[in-house]
Amino acid sequence: MSRHLPILDWARAYDRGTLTSDLLAAVIVTIMLIPQSLAYAMLAGLPPEVGLYASILPLLAYAAFGTSRSLAVGPVAVVSLMTASAVGEFAAQGTADYLVAAAALALISGGMLVLMGLFRLGFLANFLSHPVISGFITASGLLIAASQLRHVLGLPGGGNTLPQILRSLTAHASAVQPAALAIGAGTIGFLYFARTRLRGILIGFGLPPRPADMLTKAAPILSVAVTIGLAITLDLGARGLALVGQVPPGLPPIGLPAITIERVMTLAGPAFLIGIIGFVESVSVAQTLAARRRQRIHPDQELIGLGAANIAAGLSAGYPVTGGFARSVVNYDAGAETPAAGIFTAIGIALATLFLTPLFASLPQATLAAIIIVAVLSLVDFRAIRRIHAYSRPDFAAMCATICVTLLWGVEPGVVAGVLLSLALHLHRTSRPHMAVVGQVPGCEHFRNVERHDVLTDPEILSLRIDESLYFANSRHLENRISALVAERPALKHVVLMCSAVNSIDASALESLEEINHRLKEAGIAFHLSEVKGPVMDRLRRTEFLDTLTGQVFLSQFDAFQTLKPTPFPA
Amino acid sequence: MSRHLPILDWARAYDRGTLTSDLLAAVIVTIMLIPQSLAYAMLAGLPPEVGLYASILPLLAYAAFGTSRSLAVGPVAVVSLMTASAVGEFAAQGTADYLVAAAALALISGGMLVLMGLFRLGFLANFLSHPVISGFITASGLLIAASQLRHVLGLPGGGNTLPQILRSLTAHASAVQPAALAIGAGTIGFLYFARTRLRGILIGFGLPPRPADMLTKAAPILSVAVTIGLAITLDLGARGLALVGQVPPGLPPIGLPAITIERVMTLAGPAFLIGIIGFVESVSVAQTLAARRRQRIHPDQELIGLGAANIAAGLSAGYPVTGGFARSVVNYDAGAETPAAGIFTAIGIALATLFLTPLFASLPQATLAAIIIVAVLSLVDFRAIRRIHAYSRPDFAAMCATICVTLLWGVEPGVVAGVLLSLALHLHRTSRPHMAVVGQVPGCEHFRNVERHDVLTDPEILSLRIDESLYFANSRHLENRISALVAERPALKHVVLMCSAVNSIDASALESLEEINHRLKEAGIAFHLSEVKGPVMDRLRRTEFLDTLTGQVFLSQFDAFQTLKPTPFPA
Repeated sequence: MSRHLPILDWARAYDRGTLTSDLLAAVIVTIMLIPQSLAYAMLAGLPPEVGLYASILPLLAYAAFGTSRSLAVGPVAVVSLMTASAVGEFAAQGTADYLVAAAALALISGGMLVLMGLFRLGFLANFLSHPVISGFITASGLLIAASQLRHVLGLPGGGNTLPQILRSLTAHASAVQPAALAIGAGTIGFLYFARTRLRGILIGFGLPPRPADMLTKAAPILSVAVTIGLAITLDLGARGLALVGQVPPGLPPIGLPAITIERVMTLAGPAFLIGIIGFVESVSVAQTLAARRRQRIHPDQELIGLGAANIAAGLSAGYPVTGGFARSVVNYDAGAETPAAGIFTAIGIALATLFLTPLFASLPQATLAAIIIVAVLSLVDFRAIRRIHAYSRPDFAAMCATICVTLLWGVEPGVVAGVLLSLALHLHRTSRPHMAVVGQVPGCEHFRNVERHDVLTDPEILSLRIDESLYFANSRHLENRISALVAERPALKHVVLMCSAVNSIDASALESLEEINHRLKEAGIAFHLSEVKGPVMDRLRRTEFLDTLTGQVFLSQFDAFQTLKPTPFPA
Repeated sequence: MSRHLPILDWARAYDRGTLTSDLLAAVIVTIMLIPQSLAYAMLAGLPPEVGLYASILPLLAYAAFGTSRSLAVGPVAVVSLMTASAVGEFAAQGTADYLVAAAALALISGGMLVLMGLFRLGFLANFLSHPVISGFITASGLLIAASQLRHVLGLPGGGNTLPQILRSLTAHASAVQPAALAIGAGTIGFLYFARTRLRGILIGFGLPPRPADMLTKAAPILSVAVTIGLAITLDLGARGLALVGQVPPGLPPIGLPAITIERVMTLAGPAFLIGIIGFVESVSVAQTLAARRRQRIHPDQELIGLGAANIAAGLSAGYPVTGGFARSVVNYDAGAETPAAGIFTAIGIALATLFLTPLFASLPQATLAAIIIVAVLSLVDFRAIRRIHAYSRPDFAAMCATICVTLLWGVEPGVVAGVLLSLALHLHRTSRPHMAVVGQVPGCEHFRNVERHDVLTDPEILSLRIDESLYFANSRHLENRISALVAERPALKHVVLMCSAVNSIDASALESLEEINHRLKEAGIAFHLSEVKGPVMDRLRRTEFLDTLTGQVFLSQFDAFQTLKPTPFPA
């Protein structure tokens, strides 16, 4: 029971000490989450209250079903961008349809995550390789920053891809609003200063590191307060500055989004991608934090936790949510010990939607855009591109493809292109495995590559080592290689395949081995194996292959040479 | 030059002895190919002369560009079925459009094969695993046999899938024609007798084995001659028996098929599948025959050879061709020594189209259907299904999916479903690799699985062996596994990852190792590697990983235990 409802575990041992820690963490995370929720809702093309709605019930649901003690869920940048892209295909921003589709997206995505968790399909997320995710996040960060520039400049327009956004910006370039620019650039400057310098200065003034950290993280809420103050005192709204405007006070309405089955089908693809991307991000944050306290994250249960959070978002007029990196670290650092901190945070946000919304009416959109820009630029990681370039060309290619396709064609094609290319490159690599003709190192039992070492060979015996498991994509390559090697060696009598690196042999590879055995037999050559691993040998014993094998299976390559060579080399 | 034009190789050494052998083989293959060409054209939904056209120029093209000395190309059963399925989507049988589309299909498919050969993309064919091909061929054989039943029964109708064909047969069941049934069933019986008994009987009468073989293979042409005779003498055509009808005499017209770009785009998918399937079949036949004489097939050049043959088919009003198994074996057994045998066969077929076509007018369609049925039933291999079931469940699943989808939805969905499923299962398998916690075998330096062997372990040291290369699909699994193992072991101080089976580490896996190192460090545990292979170590040295590694890289797991344990176990 407690496997699928982790709340039963930690709630039992809950005491006053934990309560104090969790409450403190909740206050700090609430202060951080309010401006983020408003900002990311804007990024998703949604009214600001939807961001707040997505930070109430989802937190309660995750607290009940999630396995991380520190993860803070809610709206995050990349998922907001993906929501804008997915929903924007069907409905115009500002319409009721758009709101319904965003909530439905959360509901569908949540349902998929729960199903994946119940059927233990979490491994599907593994097909998002690190270079693809890293490239996707970098490209999304650039895309988000570019998309928010217009709010900082006070321009109309929009766009889901970099060319669209840039075209829209240049088309309206003459209409830059000085007030928006002043507030936007000022906020960016202040937030950047807070991020890079403030902590050091506060510590210099004698503040202990942890409070200094917390104060630094509160910089966004400070900029929100100050720019609201400026907007009201200078009456900037009347002078044309875009403000958030009236936010309806009150708790979110509860209910199923009114949506047709056809719309559900068209949202299924984006919902799946949003779910998987959110899951990967969230689990990686959760595992990093859990490791510090030697706690454990159960990925399949995390799917259920995140799925429940998204279902809650969908039922309470929200939009897709996931675990955020920055806010989870703040939650952890502030001392959160159990998911109860998430429950208290939800209560804090609920209080904000009840009582603080009138204040947000005068919040400049440029402030929110500035908060987003500073937040997402930390996602852009150009060093990762260089590092991966140095380590592996195929991974680099997958990463570049993801970045370029995301920037030029949008987020969904970007992820899909990256995944398909990384799969294709992986299969291509394993389909041409490293093979080496080996010979005996003089004076010992070792066998090494004849091209790299000075080793002993025999014209009648060909020893070939294959450095990969044998499966359909590479077994014909082995057939070809052996054919080629045999055609070059007229005196050949024995071929020994050294299987020390072969972890498995699938049915195609078995058929290829049978074919090699058959063809070598036609040519009067015996076919042997050596150093076959236990589990591989167990499987081969279940077939007729060993009966038809013209040669033997040797325990070691050295044994093979000792047996097959009339005058063996000494060890 | 001679790499891409193998004819330059063998033509130089051509002499009178080779000429005699090749001529004899050509005569025998021609006799075999005439009824097959007519029959497979009917299977493809094409007029009989198209089958003959596809057996003239393509043979010349393959002789110039192919690398096999014995391969006999021309129309084959499976490719004919695939042609019927692909072309049938756009045009009705018997229309000029249908003929044009079939020729275009050959041209497109040939062009793709040539490009694949030039860009060395032959490895793409490797993604058709043996179980998928075997299942596909079995299902195609069943489908073809079922589709020909109506000709044997003298019924109208058609269909591309098993349910369609069976529905059509039952709908017309009351209209069975006695004459068709007599000729069809009689021919099937005779051909089956020839295939299983005739050779033995002829040898019993004192004939040497090789002529007996050749005579046996000539059974189809004999049944053609006999049933033509019956049809003429009994005037069966006038009594309602379906005959081949007027075949226009003369050589094929040469020219580009008149087709729009849109049609080319829609034919591209089927053309690709037909090309790949044909290539796989053909190369496997060619390699088997080449091995007997220690000759070599160059797969990338084979793509060019087969591609040229298909382009020739497309330009001469033919349809897709490939190397056939039965006729290649006959060609080889009859003594063909060079591709010149193919040139002589082409001349033989050309003579037949010039002079023999009037004879074919009275050939009963039931005879051709019988020839097809007996030929394709040898493709159906139920034993392979059992064998693969015993060896590997994932391979069995891929095979069954291919068979079922092919029978129920047709040939193209069948191949695609099989390939996708086998890829998914392969990735699923490698994404959850075998891992074993290992301990030292008492009294020696070996380390074995703690669950299978009685080995020595230490509560402070965890030794984990992973039996697979590390890449994106399995690296997070390793992270999870190590997290779980660490959470169970409060006294743990060292984790040693034994990499003896790791042939490569991609960028994702490297990042996972860094993450594991980082998380273990947070938990106060050192992370070590052991038995890292040379090429893998070379790559790791190019990164910062080894600098940040909290532990060491040991040459062997035994070294690790010796170094890390305060009181090491003796070897």
